[in-house]
Amino acid sequence: MLFPLIKEILSFPADSRSLKIRGWIRTKRDMKNLVFIEANDGSCFSSLQCTFDRAQGALNAETEAALERAGTGAAVEIEGKLVPSPASGQAVELAAESIAVIGDAPGEAKPGIAPYPLQKKRHSLEYLREIAHLRPRTNTFGAVTRVRNSLAFGIHNFFQSRGFQYLHTPIITASDAEGAGAMFQVTTQNLDELAKTGKAPDYGKDFFGKKTSLTVSGQLEAETYALALSRVYTFGPTFRAENSNTTRHLAEFWMIEPEMAFASLNDNMDLAEDFLKTIFTGALKDCAEDLAFFNTHIEKGIIETLASVCRGTFTRMTYTDAIKELEKAALNKSDVFDFKPYWGCDLQSEHEKFLTEKIAGGPVIVTDYPKEIKAFYMKQNDDEKTVRAMDVLVPRLGEIIGGSQREDNLQKLEKRITEMGMKPEDYSWYLDLRRYGSAPHSGFGLGFERLVQYVTGMANIRDVIPYPRAAGQAEF
Amino acid sequence: MLFPLIKEILSFPADSRSLKIRGWIRTKRDMKNLVFIEANDGSCFSSLQCTFDRAQGALNAETEAALERAGTGAAVEIEGKLVPSPASGQAVELAAESIAVIGDAPGEAKPGIAPYPLQKKRHSLEYLREIAHLRPRTNTFGAVTRVRNSLAFGIHNFFQSRGFQYLHTPIITASDAEGAGAMFQVTTQNLDELAKTGKAPDYGKDFFGKKTSLTVSGQLEAETYALALSRVYTFGPTFRAENSNTTRHLAEFWMIEPEMAFASLNDNMDLAEDFLKTIFTGALKDCAEDLAFFNTHIEKGIIETLASVCRGTFTRMTYTDAIKELEKAALNKSDVFDFKPYWGCDLQSEHEKFLTEKIAGGPVIVTDYPKEIKAFYMKQNDDEKTVRAMDVLVPRLGEIIGGSQREDNLQKLEKRITEMGMKPEDYSWYLDLRRYGSAPHSGFGLGFERLVQYVTGMANIRDVIPYPRAAGQAEF
Repeated sequence: MLFPLIKEILSFPADSRSLKIRGWIRTKRDMKNLVFIEANDGSCFSSLQCTFDRAQGALNAETEAALERAGTGAAVEIEGKLVPSPASGQAVELAAESIAVIGDAPGEAKPGIAPYPLQKKRHSLEYLREIAHLRPRTNTFGAVTRVRNSLAFGIHNFFQSRGFQYLHTPIITASDAEGAGAMFQVTTQNLDELAKTGKAPDYGKDFFGKKTSLTVSGQLEAETYALALSRVYTFGPTFRAENSNTTRHLAEFWMIEPEMAFASLNDNMDLAEDFLKTIFTGALKDCAEDLAFFNTHIEKGIIETLASVCRGTFTRMTYTDAIKELEKAALNKSDVFDFKPYWGCDLQSEHEKFLTEKIAGGPVIVTDYPKEIKAFYMKQNDDEKTVRAMDVLVPRLGEIIGGSQREDNLQKLEKRITEMGMKPEDYSWYLDLRRYGSAPHSGFGLGFERLVQYVTGMANIRDVIPYPRAAGQAEF
Repeated sequence: MLFPLIKEILSFPADSRSLKIRGWIRTKRDMKNLVFIEANDGSCFSSLQCTFDRAQGALNAETEAALERAGTGAAVEIEGKLVPSPASGQAVELAAESIAVIGDAPGEAKPGIAPYPLQKKRHSLEYLREIAHLRPRTNTFGAVTRVRNSLAFGIHNFFQSRGFQYLHTPIITASDAEGAGAMFQVTTQNLDELAKTGKAPDYGKDFFGKKTSLTVSGQLEAETYALALSRVYTFGPTFRAENSNTTRHLAEFWMIEPEMAFASLNDNMDLAEDFLKTIFTGALKDCAEDLAFFNTHIEKGIIETLASVCRGTFTRMTYTDAIKELEKAALNKSDVFDFKPYWGCDLQSEHEKFLTEKIAGGPVIVTDYPKEIKAFYMKQNDDEKTVRAMDVLVPRLGEIIGGSQREDNLQKLEKRITEMGMKPEDYSWYLDLRRYGSAPHSGFGLGFERLVQYVTGMANIRDVIPYPRAAGQAEF
């Protein structure tokens, strides 16, 4: 029913079968006797070479006219026979017999239409960001999109094959509970009228009858389902209203949050290690052609970095031991860090890099952080100073996953909530999980765009999501 | 690494292997010599029967004490051997040797803790909606969650296996373009302060530097990627700020929107039919036990309805022919419809049901609707009255899918935008798709919760999403 995509066609035998292919022209070269068209349909990195041979008999006037029209970016249908390719790199090409231009992409300005903005030349990523609706037609963004797709599907496969159920946690929330970051407010109040009245907003009249925001995490809700279905995961959008104009932050991003019952922090570490190795192994296999492009043109060595993460065992060390290593290094060489490490400090990027690249020579899982620098819901250790947190650090990047075993003791959790200046009654449903059938449970969170950045080597997070949202930026 | 879930254990041979199982107690029956515990972990509908046999030698004091404590809802770990089950319905049961209560679920009030709200008895769906954080522990909501998960994964598999790439379109948007419904506003302005100043809001100072809302559809953005990657689909949350207090509307729901290039409305109909048949066939196979429950306890005949959709060919008829059929029926029997059908009217639920149940005896795809009742982007027919729209109607429900071939002609689309009182300059990026490499393309949209409702037979849409959002409702 569906016609074959170029990805499929490239795997067909060169058996002279007749085919009609659809795609967009990447390049056209008109030689004396031959016209070469590279047609791409985005299904894979490669284009299909279509060769029109004038020597085999003059092309008819209609075909010559269509070839004349068919410029870079034009949508075309080309009919021909699939034959062995004399060119290197591909097994097959199309011995083209006819071509129809379905949609032009003018190389020069026409009335009311500027020239096609993606003429064959190198464009800067900054320029392409401004034409985000056209950039998937380029090599780089086609590859990013395919890798992103492959990673997303790989993540579903990973969890499904291990008995995790996919869960949709709410996007609009009335609790600004977790304190994970600044939130966007969601409202149906007319702000112009609100300003005119000069009266305080009446949230009772807002759509939900109360003040609501966009979620910063689905974890607390995921816990409610983990304690019913044993293993669940979320994969949905989350939001931060933080004015962080960096290459690593978005206001809207997708997050994956598995949560499992009857699972300790050790189980959590095992899951995270299995997860990253499985996902990277899958990407190396399924996206070989796209990754080869990134490895050559975007970030040299990215393939070896991914392969090395898959090969070794992740080093596991406590935060306390990690700090000792860092302090030792700082003592040996006073200028090794900009930020002096000490017990109680947040690990800085430079510390995380040092741990993976200098100490462990590979990924490191740091556990048992001081409770003061971690969230209220993490399981308290008997030392009363640390909690069962874990951060997974990988070479080149630092933290890629953060997680914890959750506090499953009602009294300890209530006490911690109060200590941190929050109100237990705001968390009554969350505390119910510790009142009724409580069980050890653990989970982690992973920002999807950072994962795509890590696999592709793309430096700016705005280039790994179709339409990035950041401070001052909500185009398209 | 991960311990086996009850779903897996139930498929093991009864070879007396030693096992530790984890789960929550559904029922406990204490007979003279035997104690039966039904343990459930949510991985499947069935619980695992665990039998403690006092006749085989008295249970030790520790085990007797734990059995005494282990009430409905308690989290337990039970060790024993997997043996053939004398009970009907299951091949295996656990000949239990020891039990540990991990988390109590008190059947009677304890200091600061009310009795476990899910004591063994039938609870109304309304009551369960109020304890939405605990309802996944019931038969009904466990089954809904598993079916929902299976459908979601089935949808990814369907599209991935047909060369569609998964795409994340933006949630926060600055265009209230499509006019698909009332929108929620997203803001970082402090509404209290805004009210105090009495000045009109300054969107230049809002987070994105302009007025933004939550998306009502990812279609327009999906089109930009379809015209680069040939086949894409979205699966993400969408929003309507409409005060529709019905059993069919949510303010926040998940939508699936495939979009394909070089595809006519016929291709679109083929895809939609293939989609529903594949998804329903998968659900009947993968969720047999859960669907048997729905078929018996929630909506009799639901399995046969799904099977019948998979069996037949969908009838295809134009809107004009559909209206003729309806007018004929209304003429024959004047009280057959509350709303009199006429050319130009929106089809009512009663009309859709009549078409599927009385005229076609199965699913119907109605095409070529009057342009006045459809969106601006649909491809215009040569009759200048109708557009290449399609609605897929299924028995019992009516419309389950809506889609169209998209207008790919720049001039026609610009003219239609203007006719409908919108401004072409607001759609410049969307129009670019018709300026550069335009191609016929088509797609459809499907509300995920309505699909889950259709498959499970659940009457209220609030019962097929973990934490429903509707007017006045944003709990948890």
